Amino acid sequence: MAEERHYENILSKRKEETLKQLQKDYDDFQKNKTFWYPIWQFGEPKGKLFKVGCEDNPDFGETSYLEFDSGRTAFLSIDFQIDFCGEKGYVDVMKYPLENTATPLIATKEVLNRVRKTDITVIHTREGHLPDLSDCPYNKLLRSKIIGKGTGIGEKPKGGIGELLIRGSKSWGIVKEVEPIEGEILVDKSGKGAMGVSNLHLVLQNLGITHLVIAGITADVCVNTIMTEANDLGYWCLLLKDCTGATDNGNYDAVIKSTKMQGGVFGWVSDSKSFIKAMEGI
Amino acid sequence: MAEERHYENILSKRKEETLKQLQKDYDDFQKNKTFWYPIWQFGEPKGKLFKVGCEDNPDFGETSYLEFDSGRTAFLSIDFQIDFCGEKGYVDVMKYPLENTATPLIATKEVLNRVRKTDITVIHTREGHLPDLSDCPYNKLLRSKIIGKGTGIGEKPKGGIGELLIRGSKSWGIVKEVEPIEGEILVDKSGKGAMGVSNLHLVLQNLGITHLVIAGITADVCVNTIMTEANDLGYWCLLLKDCTGATDNGNYDAVIKSTKMQGGVFGWVSDSKSFIKAMEGI
Amino acid sequence: MAEERHYENILSKRKEETLKQLQKDYDDFQKNKTFWYPIWQFGEPKGKLFKVGCEDNPDFGETSYLEFDSGRTAFLSIDFQIDFCGEKGYVDVMKYPLENTATPLIATKEVLNRVRKTDITVIHTREGHLPDLSDCPYNKLLRSKIIGKGTGIGEKPKGGIGELLIRGSKSWGIVKEVEPIEGEILVDKSGKGAMGVSNLHLVLQNLGITHLVIAGITADVCVNTIMTEANDLGYWCLLLKDCTGATDNGNYDAVIKSTKMQGGVFGWVSDSKSFIKAMEGI
Amino acid sequence: MAEERHYENILSKRKEETLKQLQKDYDDFQKNKTFWYPIWQFGEPKGKLFKVGCEDNPDFGETSYLEFDSGRTAFLSIDFQIDFCGEKGYVDVMKYPLENTATPLIATKEVLNRVRKTDITVIHTREGHLPDLSDCPYNKLLRSKIIGKGTGIGEKPKGGIGELLIRGSKSWGIVKEVEPIEGEILVDKSGKGAMGVSNLHLVLQNLGITHLVIAGITADVCVNTIMTEANDLGYWCLLLKDCTGATDNGNYDAVIKSTKMQGGVFGWVSDSKSFIKAMEGI
Repeated sequence: MAEERHYENILSKRKEETLKQLQKDYDDFQKNKTFWYPIWQFGEPKGKLFKVGCEDNPDFGETSYLEFDSGRTAFLSIDFQIDFCGEKGYVDVMKYPLENTATPLIATKEVLNRVRKTDITVIHTREGHLPDLSDCPYNKLLRSKIIGKGTGIGEKPKGGIGELLIRGSKSWGIVKEVEPIEGEILVDKSGKGAMGVSNLHLVLQNLGITHLVIAGITADVCVNTIMTEANDLGYWCLLLKDCTGATDNGNYDAVIKSTKMQGGVFGWVSDSKSFIKAMEGI
Repeated sequence: MAEERHYENILSKRKEETLKQLQKDYDDFQKNKTFWYPIWQFGEPKGKLFKVGCEDNPDFGETSYLEFDSGRTAFLSIDFQIDFCGEKGYVDVMKYPLENTATPLIATKEVLNRVRKTDITVIHTREGHLPDLSDCPYNKLLRSKIIGKGTGIGEKPKGGIGELLIRGSKSWGIVKEVEPIEGEILVDKSGKGAMGVSNLHLVLQNLGITHLVIAGITADVCVNTIMTEANDLGYWCLLLKDCTGATDNGNYDAVIKSTKMQGGVFGWVSDSKSFIKAMEGI
Repeated sequence: MAEERHYENILSKRKEETLKQLQKDYDDFQKNKTFWYPIWQFGEPKGKLFKVGCEDNPDFGETSYLEFDSGRTAFLSIDFQIDFCGEKGYVDVMKYPLENTATPLIATKEVLNRVRKTDITVIHTREGHLPDLSDCPYNKLLRSKIIGKGTGIGEKPKGGIGELLIRGSKSWGIVKEVEPIEGEILVDKSGKGAMGVSNLHLVLQNLGITHLVIAGITADVCVNTIMTEANDLGYWCLLLKDCTGATDNGNYDAVIKSTKMQGGVFGWVSDSKSFIKAMEGI
Repeated sequence: MAEERHYENILSKRKEETLKQLQKDYDDFQKNKTFWYPIWQFGEPKGKLFKVGCEDNPDFGETSYLEFDSGRTAFLSIDFQIDFCGEKGYVDVMKYPLENTATPLIATKEVLNRVRKTDITVIHTREGHLPDLSDCPYNKLLRSKIIGKGTGIGEKPKGGIGELLIRGSKSWGIVKEVEPIEGEILVDKSGKGAMGVSNLHLVLQNLGITHLVIAGITADVCVNTIMTEANDLGYWCLLLKDCTGATDNGNYDAVIKSTKMQGGVFGWVSDSKSFIKAMEGI
C-alpha cells in the first residue's frame, strides 16, 4: 500500500542538500566521536562551548561526546516536589518508598551548584493542578483517589501537609535540597509531559534554548515523557542518570536503557560527575 | 516556597463539586471494581457498552474492570511499519532482532479481526518524514545515520526496499498482517509521539473519541509516548500487552509495569484475549 | 504540480460515508434552515437543546438557526480585564478610548445573568504573563514599552493601579461588571490566542464541551484568534456581536463581517437578545 | 479579585533583568527608530543583516525599521492555491470575485524572484484535507456544502477541476504564478491556522527561523490567524500589505489596520517595494 503514496518531485533537492551535510557530519564523527554544537543550524555560540562524555553511544559499550553552547542550554530540574520525593506527599501517601525518588537529589544538588556559576539557564518544572481541578482529567483524579485509599489529588491526606498535586499547596512545593533561587524559571504543568500541557516550549523559545540537560523525577513518567516530547521537537537532550529516579528500580533501568537504544533514540545519557567535569572551562 | 503561591478563593466551589462526584465513584468502585463509562462526563453512550478486565489494577495482584462505549472508542494500531517490524526496514538495518517487534502482530491481527465487526473506530499511525526531511530534526537524522553505519533516515540501505522512514517509501508502509482496510483512518506523524507532531488529537475530536485501546510498536518509544500524551489530555487508555513489543525485553517489561504504577498512571493494561472476550456482546 | 501528490486509495470509502451524512444534513437544512446539534457525532444531549437565530447565514441577508446542547456548551468571556477595558489599564495607558471595549460589558452582563440560571459552563479567560516575564516574547515586551511611551508590560504606569498584563497585578483582574463567581472557570493565557498558549483546550475536553458562545475583547485580537483556533479544532462557535468590541470601529465591523463570510468561515454570529431569548426554555 | 492571586517572590529578579534590557532597547529606539535583530537573544547572525521600513509604527503616521538576519528569516507564502485564487476553485464556486485574492500574486511573484537570490528560506503553505476527510471538522464540511449550494469540501463542482480543498486534488494546488520551486518547503495544514494543525512550528524550529515575512491569502482568515499564532509564539512577523488580499475590501483594510494597533500587536506592516529594496545588500 505504501506505493500508493506519492509526493511532489521538487522535494528531492532539499533532501540532497541535507544528506550532503549529514555525510560531512557522519565522516567527522568517525574521527572525533563528537556531536558538535551545530553552528550551521543555530549560528555562532552565544556562550561558551563545552563537551560532555556520553555513555553507550552510539552503541552500547561505546563513548561519544556531545557539545553544548552554554548560552543556549537549559538545565531542566523536573518535578522534585514534596509530592514526589518528600514526606507526606503524593508518592508517600501511595506507600511507595521515597528512597528511589529522593536519592537523585544529592547529585542534582551538586550539578545545580556548578551550573549556577555559568550562564546556563535553570528551569524547574512542577506538576500540579489548579485549585478548582478544572485542568485535571477526571480519570486521573479517580485513579489517584482509589490508589490513595480514598485520598487523591486535591485532597489533604491524614497527617499530610497539603492537598496533593495542587498549585499553591505545601506538598506541591519543591523540596529544600534543589529549591529554585532568584532568577531561575518555574514552569507549571498540568500533566506528566510538558509540551502540550504547559508553557515550557514557549519559555524555551523565548530564551533561544536548543539543548536540554535533564534531571528529575520520576524517570519513567514525567522525565521520560518530557524528554521524548522535547526530542520530537528537535531539542538535543542529555539525561543525567544519577540525577533521576523512579519508584521502581526496573523501570528506572529501562528508561536509561531505552534512551540509549537506536544510537540515542531520545537523546544522550551521562552522569553528574561527567557533566560537572565538562563545565570546568566555562 | 510553596506558601508564596496563592489562587483566587472562588475556585473552591468547583473543587467541592468535583470531590463529591469522586467520592460517589470511589464508593461505587469499592463494590464493583469497575471504572464505568462516565455518562455524567461524556453523555449517554453512542454505541454499546462493554467491560474489559484489567490486570494489576488498582494495585499489583488485583483486577478491575474498565467500561467502554464502542461508539466513542478507537483502536489505535501504532507504527506496525516495515521499518519497525519488517525485513530490510529501519530496525532491521540497525541489526536489532525483528522477533520482538514482529510477535505482537499475531495478537493484534486477531483483535483487528474482531474489532472490525463492531462500530469501534480503527486508526493506524505511521512514523515518517516528508521526502525533503523538512519535518525531521537534524539530531534525529544524524543519530540514525551513525547507528546505521552510514545509512539513516531518508536513505535506502544496501539490499533495502526503500528510503528509511520516508512517507511514500516502501519500507515505511504498514506490514501486510495488520494492513489498514477501507474505511479505516491513517494518521501520519513526524515523531515518536503524536499529539504535538501529527493531527491525531484533531482526528479523535472530530470522531468524538474518549477511550483508546492501544496496540503497536515499539512499546518503550512510540507506544509509551502516545499513551502518555493521550493520558495527559484526558483520554482513557487501555494498553493490550501482547499487542505491543520492544527491541529489548527489559524495556518492554518496564513499559507494562510503569503503566500499572500509581493505580494506572498512564491507563490500564489488559491483553488481546480479554479484550476480544469483552467484545462478545457488541 | 498538484497532480504529483497521491494518497492511498482505501481512503475513499470513509469519504463516501461522510458525504452521505453531509447530503442528508444538507437536504434537511434546505427545509429547516437549522444546524441541529449533531447527535450522530457527539451522542445524545447531556443537557437541554435550544436554538439560536444567526444573522447573515448561510449568506448575507439570510437567517439560520444553530442548535445547542446546554450540557456541552461553554460561555466564553474573553479578557474583560481592567488592562483592556478599565481605567489605568494597558489600553488606557496607550490612550485608546475605553468606550469601545467597555460598551460590550452591558450586554455581556445580561447574558451572564441568564446563563448562570442554566447548566451552561462559564469560562473566563485572562491574558497575562508570569511575574518574571518568562512566558512573554521579547518583541511583545519591547513593542508595548515603545507604544506606552516607556511603560510597557510588566511595569506600573504613572498613576496606574498595577503592573500591566501581569498575573496577580491589580490591572490584570477582570472588571467588576462581569467578574467570575463561585464555580466558574478561569483560564490564564500567555498570548492573544488560547489553544497553544493556555490550557483552554484541555479544560474544554475535561468538560466534554463541543459548542462555544463567545463574548469578550478585543474583537480583532483575542476574540478573533481564539474563535479561529477553536474553529480549526472543530468547536462550533457562536459570536455575540454586541458582547464584543475593538479599540477601532472599522476593525470591529470587519471581525463581524469576516466571521460571516463563506457561510460562516469561523462560526456563527448572533446578539445578546437573541441568545437570551433562545435560553427561555432551559 | 486580582489581589487574591500571588506568585513566588523569587520571580522578581528575572523581571528586573529583563526590564533593564528593555530600557536599553527602548532608549536606543528613541534615537534609531529601529527594532534591531536581537543578537543578545538569538546569537550572532547566520546570514546577512538588512533593515525594512515599516509603516505606521510604532504609531500611525510614523515609520520604524525592522532588522532581519537573512539566515534566520523565512518568507511565508500562504495558501495561494487555485481553491482560493484560481478559476473553478473553492472561492470561485462560492461566487466571490477572484480579483481581490488574485491581485497580490503580482507583488508576491516579484518578492519571490528577489528572495530566491538570497539565503532566506521560502515556505509555502496549503490548506487542505486528507482524501478521507478525517482531519476536517464536520461543521466546516457542512457549512461549505451549504454556501456552495450543494458542493462543498471534498466534492468536485460542476465544471470544476478537482475536489475542493483536498490534498492531491488539482484545485488544491498552488497557482502557477507563485509555484514552489526545487528546494523550497511545502507545509500542509488542516485548518486556517498552522501552529496547532500543521507541522509549521516544527519546520521553523528545525531551520532556526526567528523572523517571518508574510504574504498570502486570504488576509482576514489564514494570513491573520497564522500571523497571530506565530506572534504568540515569539516570531517577529512582517506582513507585506500588497502581497495579501481578502474576498472583501473592508476586511482586508481591517487586517492591515489591526496589525498596526498597539504599536504592532501582531507584528509590522510593509510592502513589496520596501522589502525588495531592503534586500539590496544581501
